Amino acid sequence: MELFFNPGSIAVIGASERKLGSLVVQNLLRGYKGQIFPVNPNYKQIYGLQCFPSLEGIPHPVELVIVLVPAHLVPSVIEACARKGIKNVIIESAGFAEVGLKGIALQDRCKAIAKQSGIRIWGPNCMGLVDIHSNHFFTFMHPAVEREGLIPGRISLIVQSGMLSAIFLAELRRRGIGISKACSIGNRMDVDECDLLQYLINDPKTNVIALYLESLPRGRLFAKIAGNSEKPIVLLKGGRSEAGARAAMSHTSSLSGNSRLTDSILQQCGVILANDIYEMMDISNALTLIPNLPYTCRTAIITLSGGAGILACDALARKGLNVARLSEKTRKDMGKVFPDWMPVANPIDLFPAVGVHGRSKAFSLAVSSVLEDPNVDVLLIHYVAGLDSEFKELAELKKKADALKKVVFFWLMGVEEGTAAFLRETRKLGIAVHGEITRITDCLAAAARYRPRRPGDPSRETEMTPEFEKRSEKIEALSSKNSILDEYDSKQLLGVQQIPVVEEMILNSPSEAENVGQKWGFPVVLKGLIEGETHKTEFGLVHLGVFSRSQLEEAFLKVKTKLGDKGRILVQRQIKIDYELIAGFLRDKEFGPCVMFGLGGILAELDPDVAFAIAPLKYEEALRLIDQIRGKQLLDGFRGMMPLKKDLMADILVRLGDMGIADPHIEQIDINPLAVSKGSPVAIDANIILNDSGARKKKEM
Amino acid sequence: MELFFNPGSIAVIGASERKLGSLVVQNLLRGYKGQIFPVNPNYKQIYGLQCFPSLEGIPHPVELVIVLVPAHLVPSVIEACARKGIKNVIIESAGFAEVGLKGIALQDRCKAIAKQSGIRIWGPNCMGLVDIHSNHFFTFMHPAVEREGLIPGRISLIVQSGMLSAIFLAELRRRGIGISKACSIGNRMDVDECDLLQYLINDPKTNVIALYLESLPRGRLFAKIAGNSEKPIVLLKGGRSEAGARAAMSHTSSLSGNSRLTDSILQQCGVILANDIYEMMDISNALTLIPNLPYTCRTAIITLSGGAGILACDALARKGLNVARLSEKTRKDMGKVFPDWMPVANPIDLFPAVGVHGRSKAFSLAVSSVLEDPNVDVLLIHYVAGLDSEFKELAELKKKADALKKVVFFWLMGVEEGTAAFLRETRKLGIAVHGEITRITDCLAAAARYRPRRPGDPSRETEMTPEFEKRSEKIEALSSKNSILDEYDSKQLLGVQQIPVVEEMILNSPSEAENVGQKWGFPVVLKGLIEGETHKTEFGLVHLGVFSRSQLEEAFLKVKTKLGDKGRILVQRQIKIDYELIAGFLRDKEFGPCVMFGLGGILAELDPDVAFAIAPLKYEEALRLIDQIRGKQLLDGFRGMMPLKKDLMADILVRLGDMGIADPHIEQIDINPLAVSKGSPVAIDANIILNDSGARKKKEM
Repeated sequence: MELFFNPGSIAVIGASERKLGSLVVQNLLRGYKGQIFPVNPNYKQIYGLQCFPSLEGIPHPVELVIVLVPAHLVPSVIEACARKGIKNVIIESAGFAEVGLKGIALQDRCKAIAKQSGIRIWGPNCMGLVDIHSNHFFTFMHPAVEREGLIPGRISLIVQSGMLSAIFLAELRRRGIGISKACSIGNRMDVDECDLLQYLINDPKTNVIALYLESLPRGRLFAKIAGNSEKPIVLLKGGRSEAGARAAMSHTSSLSGNSRLTDSILQQCGVILANDIYEMMDISNALTLIPNLPYTCRTAIITLSGGAGILACDALARKGLNVARLSEKTRKDMGKVFPDWMPVANPIDLFPAVGVHGRSKAFSLAVSSVLEDPNVDVLLIHYVAGLDSEFKELAELKKKADALKKVVFFWLMGVEEGTAAFLRETRKLGIAVHGEITRITDCLAAAARYRPRRPGDPSRETEMTPEFEKRSEKIEALSSKNSILDEYDSKQLLGVQQIPVVEEMILNSPSEAENVGQKWGFPVVLKGLIEGETHKTEFGLVHLGVFSRSQLEEAFLKVKTKLGDKGRILVQRQIKIDYELIAGFLRDKEFGPCVMFGLGGILAELDPDVAFAIAPLKYEEALRLIDQIRGKQLLDGFRGMMPLKKDLMADILVRLGDMGIADPHIEQIDINPLAVSKGSPVAIDANIILNDSGARKKKEM
Repeated sequence: MELFFNPGSIAVIGASERKLGSLVVQNLLRGYKGQIFPVNPNYKQIYGLQCFPSLEGIPHPVELVIVLVPAHLVPSVIEACARKGIKNVIIESAGFAEVGLKGIALQDRCKAIAKQSGIRIWGPNCMGLVDIHSNHFFTFMHPAVEREGLIPGRISLIVQSGMLSAIFLAELRRRGIGISKACSIGNRMDVDECDLLQYLINDPKTNVIALYLESLPRGRLFAKIAGNSEKPIVLLKGGRSEAGARAAMSHTSSLSGNSRLTDSILQQCGVILANDIYEMMDISNALTLIPNLPYTCRTAIITLSGGAGILACDALARKGLNVARLSEKTRKDMGKVFPDWMPVANPIDLFPAVGVHGRSKAFSLAVSSVLEDPNVDVLLIHYVAGLDSEFKELAELKKKADALKKVVFFWLMGVEEGTAAFLRETRKLGIAVHGEITRITDCLAAAARYRPRRPGDPSRETEMTPEFEKRSEKIEALSSKNSILDEYDSKQLLGVQQIPVVEEMILNSPSEAENVGQKWGFPVVLKGLIEGETHKTEFGLVHLGVFSRSQLEEAFLKVKTKLGDKGRILVQRQIKIDYELIAGFLRDKEFGPCVMFGLGGILAELDPDVAFAIAPLKYEEALRLIDQIRGKQLLDGFRGMMPLKKDLMADILVRLGDMGIADPHIEQIDINPLAVSKGSPVAIDANIILNDSGARKKKEM
């Protein structure tokens, strides 16, 4: 990848003195220190540079080629690159997969040539790349309109949409936010977000990586790279809604994944998800400015407006962040400047103290006390430029906060000129500032919850069943029967994998009802199973609360009549259930084998509360997955119920993942409900869906 | 109230040539056309105006008095006002209820004097009022710093926090948003948000009313006024979180209500709730610019960036707004400029069309087609100033949109100078613009869902029980027993009110078990009731699924042993439940008698989904209350269940409210669960909490 960013020489195919070809050459002339070889048979010179009729005509080695010629000419350019032994090509031309079948064919041809010759291709249909620190603009962005005024900084961008790359740079400049590199990746014929993410994670000039993507075709790899990143990754994902995904499908040739699965997996890998362009930028910027915010995020607020203090508390609470409890020392210290009638509390409303003791005294006392307070991680100062007195001690404040390892964030409001001057100063000093309290709490939440700073989970190994062979045989035998295993067969397989299942047996005739009573007593549940039918209740095939032998016999006959000569009849012990969970396994297009965990029951169907993780899971990852659902409070001993035995639950999730991965026949596993009874999870109903034979054969090949 | 805003003459008590007294006089001199009487014994003249030693010394009638003297002098000023027959006083001085007991005493004295003399008091501890259109600044805001540059507009503000009033004006100016009136109401000794809300609803210069409040002491009245308002009301409520509410209690002497109840009731009254200062301002501004957005809000998006189109769809979807389906005519028309490979869809990505046909042709065709499309309510244009070509046809666009009654909203991005010029133009034309798509969808959602534009609910009368007398007697009899009626007594009362309750009877001895079986068959539920004890399950007093006479006798004896000589034993028919709801009645401090409706069950306890409305309810209001819960999909026939009979449910809610209102003994009613069985709601468990006798006696007095 390095040669894309720092090549010793560049050839521009389609260079000219007008249109895009002109802009690329102008951009190179304004900062690129290597050799530039414009290629265009119609020019002898371009902006004073010798112009070559073809790539072959260049009597020097070329390390990077930028292609701007019309799409139908590009395959021959790639062939020429191959002949010249060039390994890095950026195709900025459009007219490929995004324009339909013809373009797809062109793109496939280029891809084939490149693959054969070991050429890495960036694009097509992209704006290339920008490296502000090196002054490398390998792009047709306008040198005057779009390039000027960009600020060198620590955020690098990866952007799938061409137009948005230019917009992002313009907006970052307007917001005074610095940039390191910007990569417009277009159709991702070869080089994609995974390649660039890995490159930028290792780039010493990048502290935070911000992305705009509409799909994650290599989601599994992306998640793995992100999960190992020690740099924060902020993702704005387009096409998360159904309407957005429709638009995404017609806009590019990409498919958007199930956003619930995607969001869940990426969050577990520490990726921060933004909903909006500015939110993405503001959070990225805050992460470069406050990289060391502790997980606790105990925030003290200093303000001259009680109302602003209240709004700050509300915004912190909405994000689940902590309003700091001031130490006794701080309260005592501040008591010296507070009027008698006013208790010292957080938020610290300094208005009365300033009235009595003057701004300077009250303010410096408050700032020192709070920064030194061991109960405080963040000092949030509400400041109104132009209405409050001038804020002179910014440099000193920053120095002190840094020395004490505290984070300072300004909530800035006020009159135009005042805020502009304040922003110039804070940007110089690297102090975090924003005008909107809800955006400040978005930033704090992102910085505090960035995964590498989370406390670790307990780690151990989940014991695996030694009966792998036996299970495989079973699946082989069962899968010949039907592509959806019935409840009984499904639970038999789960049982082999040491996943707890409810006690049950197949009942062949009413006369066996006696055994049932002797074995378990009553009540029991009777179910009619039909192969491939997962909606038993809707068909009246389920009898709950069967309380005697005679009721059981009666139920048997009723269900038998409904079944006719199909299916079979199952009897289960009826257990007392505290609440219902669901767990499962599936193969996702983008993320591969995944495990799901969530709440069950009807309300959860209404507003699903589920989380996903990539399989195979480690035990500690399974614990984290359990902890990711919104309603996790339910699991911790809610309303006097026994807490969920999370070790057992984690084992189930690990085993589900292993079971699915070990056997490519398994397409999907649903345990629903996974009932919790006195803290122990047990599978009450389950389905295993197998691949159809055709698909299975293919995979075996 | 009119004399507060437009008095013929004003006396300023505490006028001077320095500090606040100077600012008030300067502000009056800069625009107020009536007579100004500075009052201060230490001056002969102030800024060239004759200064009077006292109010009595003014030989002219005075219509409004502005008070700036220290708090301890204020009662005598009010007395002087009373003697001079003045009816309108604004106390801007601080040092009253906000500073503790002494201040409260002072405030109470002023209140008493004012009440006796029929004086209306505005304040104390406030910044007074501003009327930009009349140039009336009855405030100590700084004439140069804070006053200059404010833009006359259609939004009026009511602000509880003094400092925030000034901040709001500064921020509105900075965002280029126009203002009509701004009212800083401080401690609300007398004039409060209800008085001003009513005044502003009738004010022809106000189109939208924006408020910042930390509590709503006259919530019931506020809700009534808001509910009848034909102008949108946008409320930023401080202290919605627990942390914020604690801060609110120490900041002012006000108590914050339960935010779930407050939010729910206000939303039903059509009040739009904002979470942030800018959100409040942006939504208010949008409501002045796009007052006539239809409820359907079918939005078409025109953009040159496919990515931006996708993000717009995502943001619309997150707010539940509609992405318009373009008519066939529009698709056909746009097909003329779209390349063959690209289907015409919404969002309309014009990039390829602009490439082939030029911006002007593609754009004007798109705009005309979409504005004329009967399937479109809103045209959202994504525009990048400085990167896209200049947008010249703004005036024409606005004219056309107005003529066709369509809303136009710009999503503006781009380089600084370009956006500034664009904003100047759009502000002049009154076109809605914002840079953040999520804020745009906040604005569209607020404008579209503003209550007066919602389709109406069916209306009819809920039949009332004729047995009102009987019920009152019953309550009288029961309330002497205990302040919490037990389940049986509670449901007896509900039954009298024609609220459906489960069939049940008191079981006095095991021998009665036989009758139970004969009457209902099995299974039944047996419960031990203890007076005042609402946690039966936790005490093992509930036996579900009692399936035979012998089991019933056994359960009776077990529970009897637990009860000892307390309580009694209840037997109920066990019915098949589809899902559980809850319903109730309570008396709220701010909103008075209210009815609650929501989802029941354990997940709902985890993350409550309840809504409140002020009682008494009309039938159609009850229907609206049912419709307010997040999980309302459950009620409409979810997963093959019968839909809830909403007419029966609405009747129950109406009767609950009437029952609570009719009898002041009733403090609270809880029906939990209110089970739904085949679409019919029926009370399974209930509690009625009565006032303690003392409170009851007081209310009767």
